[in-house]
Amino acid sequence: MKKIAVILSGSGVFDGAEIHEAVLALQAIEQEGASWHCFAPNIPQHHVINHLTGEEMAETRNVLVEAARIARGNIDDIVNLNAVDYDALLLPGGFGAAKNLSDFAFTGAGCEVNPEVKRACQAFAKEEKPAAYLCIAPTLIPAIYGPGAKGTIGDDPDTAHSFNKMGGEHINCPVNDFVLDQKRRLLTTPAYMLAGSITEAASGINKLVKELVKLA
Amino acid sequence: MKKIAVILSGSGVFDGAEIHEAVLALQAIEQEGASWHCFAPNIPQHHVINHLTGEEMAETRNVLVEAARIARGNIDDIVNLNAVDYDALLLPGGFGAAKNLSDFAFTGAGCEVNPEVKRACQAFAKEEKPAAYLCIAPTLIPAIYGPGAKGTIGDDPDTAHSFNKMGGEHINCPVNDFVLDQKRRLLTTPAYMLAGSITEAASGINKLVKELVKLA
Repeated sequence: MKKIAVILSGSGVFDGAEIHEAVLALQAIEQEGASWHCFAPNIPQHHVINHLTGEEMAETRNVLVEAARIARGNIDDIVNLNAVDYDALLLPGGFGAAKNLSDFAFTGAGCEVNPEVKRACQAFAKEEKPAAYLCIAPTLIPAIYGPGAKGTIGDDPDTAHSFNKMGGEHINCPVNDFVLDQKRRLLTTPAYMLAGSITEAASGINKLVKELVKLA
Repeated sequence: MKKIAVILSGSGVFDGAEIHEAVLALQAIEQEGASWHCFAPNIPQHHVINHLTGEEMAETRNVLVEAARIARGNIDDIVNLNAVDYDALLLPGGFGAAKNLSDFAFTGAGCEVNPEVKRACQAFAKEEKPAAYLCIAPTLIPAIYGPGAKGTIGDDPDTAHSFNKMGGEHINCPVNDFVLDQKRRLLTTPAYMLAGSITEAASGINKLVKELVKLA
């Protein structure tokens, strides 16, 4: 059975991993006959957002501890993620990818990726193992793969511009499809960058995961 | 388009709504051509559990605010839920159903259901609108429907015994099926009371939601 490592960034679209995308991806991995194991950095969240009001809360939460809610405990600190142990990698989106895994949400093209996230993701690149980045998570790609990596965040002009400014090559893509950088075995899909429903998000995620597991 | 009201109890299996069950149910509702809207009680969670360690945390969180993470903001206070506005009702499981919507996790057969949850759910019963309770949520049924209501929580003898002691009629059921109390238009499925994977949970949930939307 092929083993897929999944990196989460908390639990909740505005300050962590997008919950629907994460669950849809885990479900799709199972449906393709592969197994999943989650990882997350053991660091404080950038902040905590009240998902009812959109306002910041006077709280601190830990990315790994909150991500464990999505994983039902089937999760480890990302320092324990070694690419040699897995056949492929997947990162759902949610603002957590751009607030906790990197600081893209605040610094744009000048962003820095969390060192442990960078180490883990680059190891998959070096091992030439396939990797999938969903929604806003592709903004991590230029820092991990270097110049020329192809990917999509849908069709948002500002985010696409930043992706290109960092050295990536952005390709517009509809919600029900994915972009494959064949040379780098790298897959991206817009998910909730464009989706208006769970069904729409699932349409691209299912297609992407099918290809990811095939390549693994 | 048929409208399904979904009552959440937080966000996370050990102190709130089971995230996989909730997302699978929302996805299934969309797949059956219906729409969903979430509700939750605006009350403090019974407690907050660290989902990495299983230990209680020295924090307070609000059920409605946390449930909004699953709903992506598409949620309202349960005081605003009126059965006349919806065609059917669905409650995912997770310990939140037995810790926040009622106190079944602590008091068993002597449990009391949160008054607003009871009011909202009983209105669907009175209107003879179909309702679905997943996983541990069927432990609310005897208090809502009164004696004789048929339901399943899978095959856990202690929970089944409590269900019967409260006046329900428990029927053992495998994870990939559901129980229908035809007279009360009441559907139940074990989900993570028995499921060992997302795929297993989905097998029963998808079948149940198909029937729920058909009955609506």
